[in-house]
Amino acid sequence: MIIVTRKGISPEEIDRIRERVEALGLRTHVSVGETRTVIGCIGDEARLAHVPLLSVPGVQSVHPVMRPYKLAARDFNADKTTKVRVGDRVFGGRACLVAAGPCSVEGEAMMKETGSAVAAAGAALLRGGAFKPRTSPYSFSGLKEEGLRILAEVREETGLPVVTEVLDPRHAELVAGYVDMLQIGARNMQNFALLTEVGQLRRPVLLKRGMSATLKDLLLAAEYVMARGNLQVVLCERGIRTFGKETRNTFDLAAIPWLKRETHLPVIADPSHAGGRRDLVAPLGFAAVAAGADGLIVEVHPEPESALSDGDQSLLFGEFERLMRDLAAFAGAAGRSL
Amino acid sequence: MIIVTRKGISPEEIDRIRERVEALGLRTHVSVGETRTVIGCIGDEARLAHVPLLSVPGVQSVHPVMRPYKLAARDFNADKTTKVRVGDRVFGGRACLVAAGPCSVEGEAMMKETGSAVAAAGAALLRGGAFKPRTSPYSFSGLKEEGLRILAEVREETGLPVVTEVLDPRHAELVAGYVDMLQIGARNMQNFALLTEVGQLRRPVLLKRGMSATLKDLLLAAEYVMARGNLQVVLCERGIRTFGKETRNTFDLAAIPWLKRETHLPVIADPSHAGGRRDLVAPLGFAAVAAGADGLIVEVHPEPESALSDGDQSLLFGEFERLMRDLAAFAGAAGRSL
Amino acid sequence: MIIVTRKGISPEEIDRIRERVEALGLRTHVSVGETRTVIGCIGDEARLAHVPLLSVPGVQSVHPVMRPYKLAARDFNADKTTKVRVGDRVFGGRACLVAAGPCSVEGEAMMKETGSAVAAAGAALLRGGAFKPRTSPYSFSGLKEEGLRILAEVREETGLPVVTEVLDPRHAELVAGYVDMLQIGARNMQNFALLTEVGQLRRPVLLKRGMSATLKDLLLAAEYVMARGNLQVVLCERGIRTFGKETRNTFDLAAIPWLKRETHLPVIADPSHAGGRRDLVAPLGFAAVAAGADGLIVEVHPEPESALSDGDQSLLFGEFERLMRDLAAFAGAAGRSL
Amino acid sequence: MIIVTRKGISPEEIDRIRERVEALGLRTHVSVGETRTVIGCIGDEARLAHVPLLSVPGVQSVHPVMRPYKLAARDFNADKTTKVRVGDRVFGGRACLVAAGPCSVEGEAMMKETGSAVAAAGAALLRGGAFKPRTSPYSFSGLKEEGLRILAEVREETGLPVVTEVLDPRHAELVAGYVDMLQIGARNMQNFALLTEVGQLRRPVLLKRGMSATLKDLLLAAEYVMARGNLQVVLCERGIRTFGKETRNTFDLAAIPWLKRETHLPVIADPSHAGGRRDLVAPLGFAAVAAGADGLIVEVHPEPESALSDGDQSLLFGEFERLMRDLAAFAGAAGRSL
Repeated sequence: MIIVTRKGISPEEIDRIRERVEALGLRTHVSVGETRTVIGCIGDEARLAHVPLLSVPGVQSVHPVMRPYKLAARDFNADKTTKVRVGDRVFGGRACLVAAGPCSVEGEAMMKETGSAVAAAGAALLRGGAFKPRTSPYSFSGLKEEGLRILAEVREETGLPVVTEVLDPRHAELVAGYVDMLQIGARNMQNFALLTEVGQLRRPVLLKRGMSATLKDLLLAAEYVMARGNLQVVLCERGIRTFGKETRNTFDLAAIPWLKRETHLPVIADPSHAGGRRDLVAPLGFAAVAAGADGLIVEVHPEPESALSDGDQSLLFGEFERLMRDLAAFAGAAGRSL
Repeated sequence: MIIVTRKGISPEEIDRIRERVEALGLRTHVSVGETRTVIGCIGDEARLAHVPLLSVPGVQSVHPVMRPYKLAARDFNADKTTKVRVGDRVFGGRACLVAAGPCSVEGEAMMKETGSAVAAAGAALLRGGAFKPRTSPYSFSGLKEEGLRILAEVREETGLPVVTEVLDPRHAELVAGYVDMLQIGARNMQNFALLTEVGQLRRPVLLKRGMSATLKDLLLAAEYVMARGNLQVVLCERGIRTFGKETRNTFDLAAIPWLKRETHLPVIADPSHAGGRRDLVAPLGFAAVAAGADGLIVEVHPEPESALSDGDQSLLFGEFERLMRDLAAFAGAAGRSL
Repeated sequence: MIIVTRKGISPEEIDRIRERVEALGLRTHVSVGETRTVIGCIGDEARLAHVPLLSVPGVQSVHPVMRPYKLAARDFNADKTTKVRVGDRVFGGRACLVAAGPCSVEGEAMMKETGSAVAAAGAALLRGGAFKPRTSPYSFSGLKEEGLRILAEVREETGLPVVTEVLDPRHAELVAGYVDMLQIGARNMQNFALLTEVGQLRRPVLLKRGMSATLKDLLLAAEYVMARGNLQVVLCERGIRTFGKETRNTFDLAAIPWLKRETHLPVIADPSHAGGRRDLVAPLGFAAVAAGADGLIVEVHPEPESALSDGDQSLLFGEFERLMRDLAAFAGAAGRSL
Repeated sequence: MIIVTRKGISPEEIDRIRERVEALGLRTHVSVGETRTVIGCIGDEARLAHVPLLSVPGVQSVHPVMRPYKLAARDFNADKTTKVRVGDRVFGGRACLVAAGPCSVEGEAMMKETGSAVAAAGAALLRGGAFKPRTSPYSFSGLKEEGLRILAEVREETGLPVVTEVLDPRHAELVAGYVDMLQIGARNMQNFALLTEVGQLRRPVLLKRGMSATLKDLLLAAEYVMARGNLQVVLCERGIRTFGKETRNTFDLAAIPWLKRETHLPVIADPSHAGGRRDLVAPLGFAAVAAGADGLIVEVHPEPESALSDGDQSLLFGEFERLMRDLAAFAGAAGRSL
């Protein structure tokens, strides 16, 4: 932590700042400049995190030097990417994994049909929502446990491990009993009760970035899960909210290489939610893999026009097949396989 | 709902769109323009909400005409502001109510001291966090039930009704047993499990706007609570996340008059979180009342330098006293009292 | 400037960084921490501004300590607000000045009518655009020199000093020959050729904040003008571009008190462009004055329905009269007059 | 244009709205719904563009149906990509073109060295700034005409066509006399005087997206240039300003495929400014090409540590060589060549 003081600070004020810091077991180092004095704080910066230094007289600005996350930081894992196993698939290895399926589990027939189709096209996991977060209280909110049961059944048929969203800490164990990977959605990225709950389970977690979360916020949310003992976390860029109006969200592509350097956790992308439009899914997906993503999560529906949610951005089976075929070339160019 | 078609659409495609809409019980009205055909959909627009019209061939854009919220819309309450009673105070009347207190309940002594001070200065409610949402898993997260107990005790002493945040649907009843008003924080504005839960209780709710929530999102979140039967909702503007770096958040002042026209629910502002800096609390608070706010929620701490959270933006007792004195003049100019 | 190094930096790398800094005439101060080394740079930070320190091996982050603007900083003027004289009016004194008039000068009759009306209602300046920046090349772009001539004529009739926008450095002298204050619009806030040009004239400048300008960017744009010798600059908050959809722009109210603390230049607000809707002009204007603004600039039109630009946000004469009457109470509460 | 009216509008108010529209030569079509009446306006929507319909009594919202740009719209060019010739290179064909060079022309020797290096590595154009827009008035602002002279000389030596930025309408002809392509920078995207000026020249234009420009704003800026007769415009995504703090700007990758569908103009990306950090240039560049970009513009410097501007994001010669080698594989996967 570096503390910069206001112009004209008195020696007594400097002493008072040093006392505050040193009382917490850190050392200080004072550099007197021409117009400002700078106080370096040496030691465990975490102890200073809750101290309102800006409210101490004479302080002008405060600059943290250390990262606020430890378990999620790259050097926690000797600079290697963590392998996150989901069923018999592995995120973070040479292969880019594609999770595919409908936004919502709408029934058994459509899930079986979709499961077979995406498996045949080369998907590594099956996705589908049983509990749905909806902006309006009047929208379809999922089949709930019946949806989970269907997902488990389609897993048996297709052999694809299953990922689904959990919304409520009271459902976490139930959901974990049926599926292979628990998704935390964008709107819940800072639902700390939920993060703590999935941190206590031993199911891998797919953590989506919140719509207005900085990348540090995302890593701190991962840290919540990891701090409870669950280190199996995969991060997902899915678009952020900006002034842009032409696409549903703004796909923050640079998040992928930034995260790959900053954390050891695998990083995937969701081109369906990022673009919000069917014809943007492929180019966004190709770009994510070109930028180093460890996989994608893609919405696929047998008949998007009739989908109960997100129909505008769901691919038809044939479109998904073509996506997978074209994606292989980009994965190859990136030194990866599908 | 108005559907605009792509250039060169065929009559068959138009018929197909009409069939989809009419199958849901709405009527259609086709206007053939020079280069585009426009299809008006007349009837209950809510039935169309989940239909992915953009994925129907020939559709270029879709324009909703109706508001997606009903209970929260201004005309639901005959254009009057709803009176929300909290203890013996009323939000939405002539008086602007100020809720004041520390970010976190840190102990009994500091709460009693603060309660007396803010009551003497003219606060209408006492605030204080017992369960704290924190970006880092390593930060102080509140005294929990012990904090609730302290809040209830200070209410007895000061006569001030109490508002505190609830984070977890499993705690909603517990919290409602101790306090007078339940706060839903910005990070939980779209925690639908939590909204549904407080909608089933009969405690008034203080609903804070999410960091990247549009005002329609905020009204839909209120709708979640109201749809379960709890109509006692007060909305709170607390700053949004933008590119701005100079203040903690960007205080969206225009949200206040916009909401006052669009909804019958009372609207207050949180100048402490919006600005994030002690010296901005007063000007932001004055501005909110000048723009028509029904109240404020302000952080006050006996010794901000030692606060366990939000010390940088907490007022000292003397500063709060002065704020209340100066605020009275602005309330008067707005035809209100404190 | 403070330089934080990467973990595991070698002594040779530290020496190399120090050499780069010291070669520019600054002194360095090295603090060795547990995991990071911090290098404080003491002296004229401006010399380091163009040095790409992040590209020097071993550097992790760089923290400027000094403000990048000098002439615009508060302490340049002994902590007083600069008085900017425009005709016989003064921005930055006890009075809040209101500039009013149509978006565009559309003709002589409408300008004379508007000039008389706003003068009678208490406006301090007359505004009106002769050169109009328009997003579309097909929109009305102003009467040009004929508009300037009309403005000058209405000044003679009403006694109100006149402010108008200048778009092109080639027109700056022409415009300055007719009017009392030159406006730099939001889209040109970083048009450095134009800033430099008005910096060489001796007409006061009304500098509007760009749609995505931070407050530091705004002060640096003012610095461009001031560095050429023209110290008569008034800053204007007019709304920024964010994810918000409900208002034309997001009115960043906190910019007003932040700027009042950070610079000695007067600060006004434009509630017409910020809200983009007639019914938001009054509440936003009241709020700006409550937060400490030194004035407002407001669009008024004799018949907004027929305005050639910005009709949606222009006030009718009667509405402006009422605004001025109500505003007086808020100015009074702020210890100011109109 | 579709006009939606407020609840409870009277027949007289509807008639008044229709009269306003029909007076401009459009036809109207009224659909009476359950709670709202919708008025479709059929004919040349451009005539309505300047009418403040929201200020007409009874109007609730207005929905444009037509695109505000004509020349830049995809169907203006029979759905083909326009070929923009710059010297002997062509933007918009099968080849992705890479423009490379330093941020600023700092001298003859460094430009010659850089020109040879990037030509050898496969660059198609040489870039370099002679007039530099700088946020601070105290930063290096370019060698001006001397820089143009050097650029022309290096073109002779390397055979690479040259692109450079023009800042001031008074310099447009001068710059066009030396170089092959005129760049309009992000800060000047809505400098309408400058757009008009380059529209009158017959040099191809590289138009960079403004930091807070929507994609429609960008196409309208292109329309300004094209409306004056210069149809040779290449668009460039270079990152937008959002709440994100981890990268210099937020690279809006989806802008590339969105623009490729919406306009016939070639679209390139600037991964150097978007990421602001050397190690992000390659992944962002790969992603852009994977998403369909027609080229890149990349900063390369012989010794970034000593660069007078943008050193942090400039590639070394060896890094650029490697970028080009790796990029070829992604171009191949996209069915393109370098």
